[in-house]
Amino acid sequence: SGPMTTDSETVMLEANIDDQSSECLAYSMTRLFENGALDVFFTPIYMKKNRPAFKLSVLAKKEDEQKLARLIFDETTTLGIRTYPCARYTMKRDFLTVETPFGSISIKHAFGNGIDKYTPEFEDCARLARKHKLPLRKIYDAAQQATFETVKD
Amino acid sequence: SGPMTTDSETVMLEANIDDQSSECLAYSMTRLFENGALDVFFTPIYMKKNRPAFKLSVLAKKEDEQKLARLIFDETTTLGIRTYPCARYTMKRDFLTVETPFGSISIKHAFGNGIDKYTPEFEDCARLARKHKLPLRKIYDAAQQATFETVKD
Amino acid sequence: SGPMTTDSETVMLEANIDDQSSECLAYSMTRLFENGALDVFFTPIYMKKNRPAFKLSVLAKKEDEQKLARLIFDETTTLGIRTYPCARYTMKRDFLTVETPFGSISIKHAFGNGIDKYTPEFEDCARLARKHKLPLRKIYDAAQQATFETVKD
Amino acid sequence: SGPMTTDSETVMLEANIDDQSSECLAYSMTRLFENGALDVFFTPIYMKKNRPAFKLSVLAKKEDEQKLARLIFDETTTLGIRTYPCARYTMKRDFLTVETPFGSISIKHAFGNGIDKYTPEFEDCARLARKHKLPLRKIYDAAQQATFETVKD
Amino acid sequence: SGPMTTDSETVMLEANIDDQSSECLAYSMTRLFENGALDVFFTPIYMKKNRPAFKLSVLAKKEDEQKLARLIFDETTTLGIRTYPCARYTMKRDFLTVETPFGSISIKHAFGNGIDKYTPEFEDCARLARKHKLPLRKIYDAAQQATFETVKD
Amino acid sequence: SGPMTTDSETVMLEANIDDQSSECLAYSMTRLFENGALDVFFTPIYMKKNRPAFKLSVLAKKEDEQKLARLIFDETTTLGIRTYPCARYTMKRDFLTVETPFGSISIKHAFGNGIDKYTPEFEDCARLARKHKLPLRKIYDAAQQATFETVKD
Ligand code: NI
Ligand code: NI
Ligand code: NI
Ligand code: NI
Ligand code: NI
Ligand code: NI
Ligand code: NI
Ligand code: NI
Ligand code: NI
Ligand code: NI
Ligand code: NI
Ligand code: NI
Repeated sequence: SGPMTTDSETVMLEANIDDQSSECLAYSMTRLFENGALDVFFTPIYMKKNRPAFKLSVLAKKEDEQKLARLIFDETTTLGIRTYPCARYTMKRDFLTVETPFGSISIKHAFGNGIDKYTPEFEDCARLARKHKLPLRKIYDAAQQATFETVKD
Repeated sequence: SGPMTTDSETVMLEANIDDQSSECLAYSMTRLFENGALDVFFTPIYMKKNRPAFKLSVLAKKEDEQKLARLIFDETTTLGIRTYPCARYTMKRDFLTVETPFGSISIKHAFGNGIDKYTPEFEDCARLARKHKLPLRKIYDAAQQATFETVKD
Repeated sequence: SGPMTTDSETVMLEANIDDQSSECLAYSMTRLFENGALDVFFTPIYMKKNRPAFKLSVLAKKEDEQKLARLIFDETTTLGIRTYPCARYTMKRDFLTVETPFGSISIKHAFGNGIDKYTPEFEDCARLARKHKLPLRKIYDAAQQATFETVKD
Repeated sequence: SGPMTTDSETVMLEANIDDQSSECLAYSMTRLFENGALDVFFTPIYMKKNRPAFKLSVLAKKEDEQKLARLIFDETTTLGIRTYPCARYTMKRDFLTVETPFGSISIKHAFGNGIDKYTPEFEDCARLARKHKLPLRKIYDAAQQATFETVKD
Repeated sequence: SGPMTTDSETVMLEANIDDQSSECLAYSMTRLFENGALDVFFTPIYMKKNRPAFKLSVLAKKEDEQKLARLIFDETTTLGIRTYPCARYTMKRDFLTVETPFGSISIKHAFGNGIDKYTPEFEDCARLARKHKLPLRKIYDAAQQATFETVKD
Repeated sequence: SGPMTTDSETVMLEANIDDQSSECLAYSMTRLFENGALDVFFTPIYMKKNRPAFKLSVLAKKEDEQKLARLIFDETTTLGIRTYPCARYTMKRDFLTVETPFGSISIKHAFGNGIDKYTPEFEDCARLARKHKLPLRKIYDAAQQATFETVKD
């Protein structure tokens, strides 16, 4: 397979937040995803004046940068947001369904550039684990076994 | 309000530090702020050979990049510093003063792009909490209440 | 299966370390394992005076407490070690071997109290991945598939 | 007010987990809460052989220790669980309701030993923020202001 | 040297805090040290409902337990504090003074059980580094070199 | 000394990994170093849906970007890799050897822009500490003392 290509239209938005409770941080994350953020995560950091704090990171489409920066200012206490452009390599993905003794499970198939990876959908496995009152790993194992038999690559 | 604008004259300087005591890390942070760093923080990271370490991040004006890079080399054990340009969105800020039953407290007013945020100055609240032998939150609450009455936005 | 039982002869030794490089921390971990520590790990913590630091945790047999406390004092900069008794629940474990298209792989079988868990030995998988120039997950998958066929529980 | 008292019937259960995906960790947390855990949290730790891992901590009533230990073995990959007894100081709590321009909000009142603390219920604030399309802090501020006027302590 | 001995009159107090800003956390730490805490530190933790939070750990003399627990309730938002007894091994310490080309520096001498460790006092080194406009390590190096010549153990 | 210069031919590759065990993360790090990564490290992060996870960071020469991105896709579960260009300031380095009462030790000399830093090679010190059954710090101290005498700068 040839060279991998990137999209170049994403930006990272970052803000250090030292003045906000955990509940509000969690709410901000939710709001950012609802408004189109590609990814949102927090990192524990050590700020000046002995302050244990978190860095908020938001990966966004270039076209959403203004909207999401405004939302960060609106929903967090930060007064400054850093931003830099970011290219992204991504694998293509589609889904197949496998049958297991516990029910059907959706499998995410990630592919491209000569790589194939299969991952059972967590939500399906969790739902069947609860239904059958079994540990999650029993369902995962069944999903993986069914995938091996289906794909035989 | 129209589109938000960024300044484009800042850089991030980053170095992984695996060979330095915490006392020296804290001292480096102080020295970097004294020399004009816009922000300085540490992040816990996991390096090769089982080394628990910290990443130093320094946000700097472009014009201070050389001076601060030199300072990082001088005051830390690192032999390599990564750097990339960073734009910044910032809110404007000014201060007002409110009167509370415990004394005057300065309130930071952050504004711009249709957003207004008010935060009691921590140092004022801490000073009054000590003076009146009260929990900090009593002073914060009073500061917030006085702000609500002053601003009524 | 009846109630699970614990051994009661272990202690946790903990020390906050703010004055030592990462290389030395990694070396201390190695030395502690060599001297009989049951487990050793580090946790990032925030200490006074803005110091980013690590907590060292050492799980030890009661009979090794004195020896390992002495070793912590000898190999780290700490001047104080906290200690408290700790009971432990542990699963029994033995090993089986499975055949895969890539070679034999040892499987850890953890069991007890009606639970059975199987885990391919990482070292075996890594060795075969390198030998066959394949991603690690291909070997893991083969090991799991072979385990499913062997165990059929 | 006299001396504070503790309950002595709680235990801490801890396990280092280096062999499990984040999705499964999150699922384990949910399952533990569903089965009566008083608190569940994860801490990032640095384990041997360069492994970035997490420590699972579960606070439990003494009477639930066996059940929750079994659940940890069932739903995680760990083969060992540390446990030690833990006393707890807790504040009493009840709820009041305040009216704001945006709707009613439940306020948690924590009290005992001469201390009174009031906290707006996060879920109520989040719901009203969404309903009125306002930043969360506007609702919090209104809830705090209404509490000040209600309590006047 | 014979067996090391512990004092058995210390307790650990721990609280998970998910509802408080970094500034207040830093203030709580200061207040706890002022009221006799032997050690205070924060650990980043992952709580339920996606909340990035911190654990507060306070090591205290048994006789200060009630006072410090009350202070934690007063100065933080937590509604529950876990506590367990903790023994401590500690090294004895005294100080010597060494002369360097840059001025006198106090050296902490930790000893006991056949171990001797010498550490330049950070505050002295920092003060001389600033006075002589030199990197901190130059002063540390001079302090260590002077210690080698003084102690010759 | 004049202005410091950077090389501009490095890139940072980053991926959030929430679906992989610690063993595999450690293996990925090894594989990345073997394939020319300039640096590799992990950072603990808080992802959506309550997932405690790690960010993988890989610093690479521009010419290795494609190869290492492919390796990240092959050896981790991630489906997306962020990338941005990064300049680097680096100090030059060479080595000298010093004689100590315990044997020869290699000293790394980092220099450039008027800065000189000397660091005993960890591997040498660790080897001699084991050979002479001494704490590591005794060997480090001897190495530093020998360096002071050799360099006298
Ligand atoms: Ni079924
Ligand atoms: Ni497909
Ligand atoms: Ni007053
Ligand atoms: Ni104003
Ligand atoms: Ni083969
Ligand atoms: Ni077996
Ligand atoms: Ni309304
Ligand atoms: Ni009440
Ligand atoms: Ni002088
Ligand atoms: Ni002495
Ligand atoms: Ni020798
Ligand atoms: Ni040289």
